[in-house]
Amino acid sequence: MDIAVIGLGLIGGSLLRALAAHGHRVTGYDAAAETREAARALAKQAGAPRSGDAWRVADSVAEAVAGTEVAVLAVPLPAIPGVLAGLAGYPGLITDVTSVKGPVRDLLDGSRFVGGHPMAGKESSGFPAADPRLFDGCAWVLCLEPDDPDPADWLTLARLFTRLGARVVPVTAAEHDRAMAEISHVPHLLAAALSALLAGNPLAGTLAAGSFRDGTRVAATRPELIAAMCGGNAPAVRRVLAGVVEDLESFGRELEHDDPIAALTAGLRAPSELRRGWPPRPGAPVEVPAEVEALLALGRAGGWVSAINDGTVAGLRPETDRNCS
Amino acid sequence: MDIAVIGLGLIGGSLLRALAAHGHRVTGYDAAAETREAARALAKQAGAPRSGDAWRVADSVAEAVAGTEVAVLAVPLPAIPGVLAGLAGYPGLITDVTSVKGPVRDLLDGSRFVGGHPMAGKESSGFPAADPRLFDGCAWVLCLEPDDPDPADWLTLARLFTRLGARVVPVTAAEHDRAMAEISHVPHLLAAALSALLAGNPLAGTLAAGSFRDGTRVAATRPELIAAMCGGNAPAVRRVLAGVVEDLESFGRELEHDDPIAALTAGLRAPSELRRGWPPRPGAPVEVPAEVEALLALGRAGGWVSAINDGTVAGLRPETDRNCS
Repeated sequence: MDIAVIGLGLIGGSLLRALAAHGHRVTGYDAAAETREAARALAKQAGAPRSGDAWRVADSVAEAVAGTEVAVLAVPLPAIPGVLAGLAGYPGLITDVTSVKGPVRDLLDGSRFVGGHPMAGKESSGFPAADPRLFDGCAWVLCLEPDDPDPADWLTLARLFTRLGARVVPVTAAEHDRAMAEISHVPHLLAAALSALLAGNPLAGTLAAGSFRDGTRVAATRPELIAAMCGGNAPAVRRVLAGVVEDLESFGRELEHDDPIAALTAGLRAPSELRRGWPPRPGAPVEVPAEVEALLALGRAGGWVSAINDGTVAGLRPETDRNCS
Repeated sequence: MDIAVIGLGLIGGSLLRALAAHGHRVTGYDAAAETREAARALAKQAGAPRSGDAWRVADSVAEAVAGTEVAVLAVPLPAIPGVLAGLAGYPGLITDVTSVKGPVRDLLDGSRFVGGHPMAGKESSGFPAADPRLFDGCAWVLCLEPDDPDPADWLTLARLFTRLGARVVPVTAAEHDRAMAEISHVPHLLAAALSALLAGNPLAGTLAAGSFRDGTRVAATRPELIAAMCGGNAPAVRRVLAGVVEDLESFGRELEHDDPIAALTAGLRAPSELRRGWPPRPGAPVEVPAEVEALLALGRAGGWVSAINDGTVAGLRPETDRNCS
């Protein structure tokens, strides 16, 4: 396929390299001139001696997407509006990689758009850290909505990304945003609230060990980044946070009980079992129709798509006895 | 010194071996006959060929403590009342190793008692896991109260444990219990509340990665153990938990702000800096008078004692510019 990748940071750069390695004709673009130069230099080095550069690097969004079938927007959420001008009249299929899906969907309204979010990352960032194997085995959310008339565009992208080794997870934008609040955004806020206990309290800092270290690790993230993630997904984060606060208040009430140890043991039993059952183990392979409702049901069950066949998709569901005990 | 160690699990067993290795005459006791047998068998093996067994193992608490100067109660909090009968009339110095200090202090009222809590542990437990190097570099809380007339008994134990390589931290029982709520008990409750989000939500389990894994790790602990820790320290846990809930609600309000990203960034700045400044780095060595108030001030500043001299103690305070920014 002819594919454009807009934004050549860790995710975009890795995707450029992975798609080229899988034989696609890929054109990249980045707003930073030095990143474009780095991508051009690596293209010469990585290209086959006869056929030339491994990928092209364009000097504008419009030039990058011209003649392509798929454009991947691998820029952060605040940069997306600036990219849209270069996509005016683009007839191809657009996807993105940002960590919030509702707001991007609103921005791209009227385009052939399928929202995406590869759950891939590493400590380092930027094009120099790009790794063509980054998506091997990673979960890659691709959004579908119950009122989508036809999953053809979704299936095109799912085929593309499963062939890079990704486990493609079909969910609605709202389901994605709620799950992100649960597994990433609210955990960052809890880590921050625990870290705040160190204020004016050097004794606690001296005695703190493993449970504090792990419970607060992500609080060291730059506050601007945590705030951007949570603020971009504010309604879901507020709802999930309110539920967590309710659970904490319920633990507090159990500690006021006549027999606090028995009451709290009862309250902790389900969370403890849920955590011991995580991460879910892959269960038996499944094959489901390539239809919107069937795909969404697979995603809701914690399953994912591993290959696109004719009229069906092959995937896996997690072992339910372990995940739902 | 002549020392008795009551309870030969991981902590008691390690202490028995460490004290014997440092030349003390040590007698151990455990309520379980098979643990006593294991400790006797190892004593023969570890003993010097000429002088016999490395330590003695008694068949009752009373027999173990007879003639000793110090008795260390290395049994869990609920087992302490059962041990006290064997200590009736004991003229020596008593200390313990449990993770809550106020309630034990009440139980031991009237004895020569200094509460202790070595912050040591490992994944495995029981006498077979005992390790004479377990306390090397570990923080060992020893309690003092402002109204203690004389720190002589405290200094005896501090000398004993610093020589095993421990950093001895002087704090009041109330300061210890609050710090434990902050760095261990409440973090366990937050991990449980996050784990509860997996209930009926297999999609979240499939997408969850690093921030969820670390934020929930300790929720896999047996619920009975978490409940015993928190329930044994219920007043402090409830107070700290209420403060954490207030902070979380404040983050929630920041997300309702006109500019939620700016508001939340401001709210997250202090916690993020506190976490990046942790763990505290040791600062310059200090020498303080061997007096109750001076010792407590050292502990409150996040410092610890590394050696007992004549009339003074040598210790370290953490670097303040890093810990209090």
